[in-house]
Amino acid sequence: MYQLGIVRRNIQRADRAAMDRLAQFGAATVHEAMGRVGLMKPYLRPIYAGAHVAGTAVTVLLHPGDNWMMHVAAEQIREGDVVVAAVTADCTDGFFGDLLATSFRAQGARALVIDAGVRDVRDLTAMGFPVWSKAISAKGTIKATLGSVNVPVVCAGAMVNPGDVIVADDDGVVVVPAALASQTADAAAAREANEAGKRARLAAGVLGLDMYQMRETLANAGLKYVD
Amino acid sequence: MYQLGIVRRNIQRADRAAMDRLAQFGAATVHEAMGRVGLMKPYLRPIYAGAHVAGTAVTVLLHPGDNWMMHVAAEQIREGDVVVAAVTADCTDGFFGDLLATSFRAQGARALVIDAGVRDVRDLTAMGFPVWSKAISAKGTIKATLGSVNVPVVCAGAMVNPGDVIVADDDGVVVVPAALASQTADAAAAREANEAGKRARLAAGVLGLDMYQMRETLANAGLKYVD
Amino acid sequence: MYQLGIVRRNIQRADRAAMDRLAQFGAATVHEAMGRVGLMKPYLRPIYAGAHVAGTAVTVLLHPGDNWMMHVAAEQIREGDVVVAAVTADCTDGFFGDLLATSFRAQGARALVIDAGVRDVRDLTAMGFPVWSKAISAKGTIKATLGSVNVPVVCAGAMVNPGDVIVADDDGVVVVPAALASQTADAAAAREANEAGKRARLAAGVLGLDMYQMRETLANAGLKYVD
Amino acid sequence: MYQLGIVRRNIQRADRAAMDRLAQFGAATVHEAMGRVGLMKPYLRPIYAGAHVAGTAVTVLLHPGDNWMMHVAAEQIREGDVVVAAVTADCTDGFFGDLLATSFRAQGARALVIDAGVRDVRDLTAMGFPVWSKAISAKGTIKATLGSVNVPVVCAGAMVNPGDVIVADDDGVVVVPAALASQTADAAAAREANEAGKRARLAAGVLGLDMYQMRETLANAGLKYVD
Amino acid sequence: MYQLGIVRRNIQRADRAAMDRLAQFGAATVHEAMGRVGLMKPYLRPIYAGAHVAGTAVTVLLHPGDNWMMHVAAEQIREGDVVVAAVTADCTDGFFGDLLATSFRAQGARALVIDAGVRDVRDLTAMGFPVWSKAISAKGTIKATLGSVNVPVVCAGAMVNPGDVIVADDDGVVVVPAALASQTADAAAAREANEAGKRARLAAGVLGLDMYQMRETLANAGLKYVD
Amino acid sequence: MYQLGIVRRNIQRADRAAMDRLAQFGAATVHEAMGRVGLMKPYLRPIYAGAHVAGTAVTVLLHPGDNWMMHVAAEQIREGDVVVAAVTADCTDGFFGDLLATSFRAQGARALVIDAGVRDVRDLTAMGFPVWSKAISAKGTIKATLGSVNVPVVCAGAMVNPGDVIVADDDGVVVVPAALASQTADAAAAREANEAGKRARLAAGVLGLDMYQMRETLANAGLKYVD
Repeated sequence: MYQLGIVRRNIQRADRAAMDRLAQFGAATVHEAMGRVGLMKPYLRPIYAGAHVAGTAVTVLLHPGDNWMMHVAAEQIREGDVVVAAVTADCTDGFFGDLLATSFRAQGARALVIDAGVRDVRDLTAMGFPVWSKAISAKGTIKATLGSVNVPVVCAGAMVNPGDVIVADDDGVVVVPAALASQTADAAAAREANEAGKRARLAAGVLGLDMYQMRETLANAGLKYVD
Repeated sequence: MYQLGIVRRNIQRADRAAMDRLAQFGAATVHEAMGRVGLMKPYLRPIYAGAHVAGTAVTVLLHPGDNWMMHVAAEQIREGDVVVAAVTADCTDGFFGDLLATSFRAQGARALVIDAGVRDVRDLTAMGFPVWSKAISAKGTIKATLGSVNVPVVCAGAMVNPGDVIVADDDGVVVVPAALASQTADAAAAREANEAGKRARLAAGVLGLDMYQMRETLANAGLKYVD
Repeated sequence: MYQLGIVRRNIQRADRAAMDRLAQFGAATVHEAMGRVGLMKPYLRPIYAGAHVAGTAVTVLLHPGDNWMMHVAAEQIREGDVVVAAVTADCTDGFFGDLLATSFRAQGARALVIDAGVRDVRDLTAMGFPVWSKAISAKGTIKATLGSVNVPVVCAGAMVNPGDVIVADDDGVVVVPAALASQTADAAAAREANEAGKRARLAAGVLGLDMYQMRETLANAGLKYVD
Repeated sequence: MYQLGIVRRNIQRADRAAMDRLAQFGAATVHEAMGRVGLMKPYLRPIYAGAHVAGTAVTVLLHPGDNWMMHVAAEQIREGDVVVAAVTADCTDGFFGDLLATSFRAQGARALVIDAGVRDVRDLTAMGFPVWSKAISAKGTIKATLGSVNVPVVCAGAMVNPGDVIVADDDGVVVVPAALASQTADAAAAREANEAGKRARLAAGVLGLDMYQMRETLANAGLKYVD
Repeated sequence: MYQLGIVRRNIQRADRAAMDRLAQFGAATVHEAMGRVGLMKPYLRPIYAGAHVAGTAVTVLLHPGDNWMMHVAAEQIREGDVVVAAVTADCTDGFFGDLLATSFRAQGARALVIDAGVRDVRDLTAMGFPVWSKAISAKGTIKATLGSVNVPVVCAGAMVNPGDVIVADDDGVVVVPAALASQTADAAAAREANEAGKRARLAAGVLGLDMYQMRETLANAGLKYVD
Repeated sequence: MYQLGIVRRNIQRADRAAMDRLAQFGAATVHEAMGRVGLMKPYLRPIYAGAHVAGTAVTVLLHPGDNWMMHVAAEQIREGDVVVAAVTADCTDGFFGDLLATSFRAQGARALVIDAGVRDVRDLTAMGFPVWSKAISAKGTIKATLGSVNVPVVCAGAMVNPGDVIVADDDGVVVVPAALASQTADAAAAREANEAGKRARLAAGVLGLDMYQMRETLANAGLKYVD
């Protein structure tokens, strides 16, 4: 699975048009459109509320307390990428701050998703550089051990291949395999298409029990009403 | 304790006047007025800061990853209710989003308290529909197994009976049994009555040691001052 | 280490000029300037974003669920202090609220750092009284058991002596021993001096790989580029 | 829900014969026989492997760091009881050790279930006094604040009324309301009756897919086999 | 990554001879031989001490609280397999007990690795059927939703492909990709070859500082000895 | 507090006679004799049950994922020492295994207390080398960054100075400052002296309520008995 000491330069990024379409949907919608899979664990939280991004994954594999490979990753970023950083063991250190954010943005990155900690969050917020992380920590890191860039990684419980589409918002982070980007965008669009109508009916007081025709199934399952 | 597959329709809600009086106090004051009991665990957090609600509990018992009974609960909501959702085992999935919030609000609900996850938090925040939850997660749920509505439940470590008063703010969520609502409101009012005076004295530099006359008790307990 | 039932009145506070210089730097910079030590664990979080304080530590040792010594500590606060509260066992109760904050501020305190919970966070935010805590909880405390004031304590994994400088911001809380305050301020200033230049170069697209001259070291360590 | 400062002396214990029948089944079987409810959270663990007890609940409500009411509870124990101790806030202190175990056993207790910590676990193991707890901790407690004995409590997420049947083994702790003890024992017996036959068939290589006739349902749900 | 509703029947299992060689080494040695990757998170613990197994992975993807696919997986087990069970969201329910263990063993399974809970641990221990799990819980599951069998899964933070070699002991669980099994066994053998000699020297009082010739490197790094 | 890159060779170990007396008492008794302070957090657990040691602390300060200083520490061990290892940030990696245990024992160490992970636990158990750790993990470490040996450290929430007495058993780990070793041994002895008598009376059915004469205090505090 993991390969250490490797930087893959030429990765196959997901189709840009499909990614742009996915960018219109929230993480929950995309995750449902995938068949309720592909979600990173909910301990990943945005460092500030309201960010919503989609981008293609550049992956980084780090060791605990060592952010050396973040600099190596910077060179592989292309416009529209989201850097996805995994660590070989649990760690909350601050691997990323305002200098790296400045560099990542200059290379074209839209966001960072990291299964560890970040720092300088006030600066990152002021810059509007969104980060989803496991922790916020001032703890610095060293540069001593090789990891890898653009290898498959497991980040917050989800498998990420370089080039996959990442969709992230206040609800979390979802991974769409590059090969499924277009069909997932279709499914997400179909899902949202009739939500407006449902919302209006529910707002008007129609019950989900009736709108979704659940009463009979519930009765068959044995639901009893008592007074 | 728990009964599965049951919906109780006629519940005895706490006295409305007592609930309205409780609505004037924060969760900390009400919890103290109860004798320092009735508080849900502090891992329940509001999805946005600044919400403060009081309402009567409509309870829902869910299974992990299954939000079917939320729709059943919607029909039992009356104006002024707060839905309290418990789960039979730990789960962080997103059981609730903007569609259910639209429905709950249309039925008269003031808030949701859930010992699990929610999603669409940006929409919920924009709607001003307050939620206290254990997690935020885009993870969707299924509709396969019966739970119950309006049975006694344990939510975040606190026992809740249908009709109890729920008071929630940035400090947490407290449960006031319906039968104790009026006397708890009295006790809360008494507690707050002299806080303004205390605050003014403390702001003027009077020490709590003197204002609460603690010096003698501390000395008797053996406190030693050293230089 | 710990002494119970003791209040030390005369403590040696860090040099004021050094503290004022440290106040210009964030927790991450100060922690790096210390040699990457002295940081409290990242589970301590500010109750609202954007606060940044430096002050001299007045320490309090509490027992779980008992905030008696907070009142004793209030009398020992001098202008420019930060109260650092440790507990003899893990506890999330709300040891501190708006009345104590009013008192602490009247005595000159700039902030509270507490390895436990606080409440009245809406009021504390409105007051602009910053707190770094492990939890937010409405749970009240009693006044029954002696702890100590101005003894060495362990707070969130860091050793704090009375008079040490505390620097806290959105990234966390760092402790600078009083004797090291001046030299740490020097080191922090040196560290920040060339950051502006680096930031400009990174923003212009220069890679850290080149700016920090990492390519040769990485190659020597065995890094391989593949296509 | 909770009442403080109360000791109820006359409680209605579950029928002894029903309890004795429940004692023959493991916690998993009893929990299934209840309809998959009534289970305490799995963070409660036995202090040593292999214990299996059933008994009637004497409940204790404690405050964090204060075990005063354990002594009050001792007087209410009758032969065949299991003491169930809840705490008003999370706490891992060691509320119980070999002296209390000696006293509880002398009064007829079969075990302790506590949503907190215990100590002297080597002695308790040597005595063969089983305990299910959240933690093991040498941390001592004080005797300063009233709780209650034989009131309804929430222990590890489960509601317990005095007199309910507690069944505990290596798999966890389940609560059977006194009124349901007999029917739950019937259901547990029915459940176990055909397990031996199933086990033999599975051991002989019959697949659950065939024994439980799942193949058609799975195919209808859309399961696909690929090579 | 994930595919739902799929059972892959023909998987490429790792070379049997390589697996048998890997079976001679502990998880720590194999993990080091892999270059310090491939380890599952340490929250996975064996249900009893002393088990040590190696086998080829049959993977199962489950939903929270639903063990339906475990029965589907049983049919895909061949002699020498270890079942690796992942869940689409965090869950501690007891997905596996003595009946399934009986069935899995009858089909040839050597162990279960599950990122969730198990029950009947006393029986499993008596049977000598080893399990590495996240929790022990009596909580039962339902059979309602399709997952998959023999698709790539993420289990406790590690990527597992069907047919990979799993090595597990008291130190944890490591995954060796099938294609790397032979070379990893070579590396593990080389690593252990000189351990006996080192152990003897260390036991005789030789210091690692001298045996590994660390003194000069440490001095160059700046280590200072003070009296 | 912390100093990096330092090895202090001459430390003042606690009086050997006092340490030997402390060795007769459990961690709970010693912790009570200290005034209920000095205890490490209960997440530290022994890797096997039944170990009970006392020794003088040799301290090590490590960085996450880096065990270099363990080898430096080995040289500073004298017969009767217990190595106490702290880490600058949370980490569960396996810093210690059977080779280091062989070396530590050869130098005279009685045990290891580590606020991180260990591995080779089966071998350590077979050797009878006791370890109290936060985790068990096969994850290996590197040797890249300087920490320190025999500086004051914070381990699992407790301050430890080189030469302090460490007492550890199944209930946890307690630190006795060297200067307090003798008086703590006296207090522990006094505490245990009358425990045998109490145990006998409790075993004979005398209630703690009577033996400790609690009835009047409880009544004064307001305890009510109801039927």
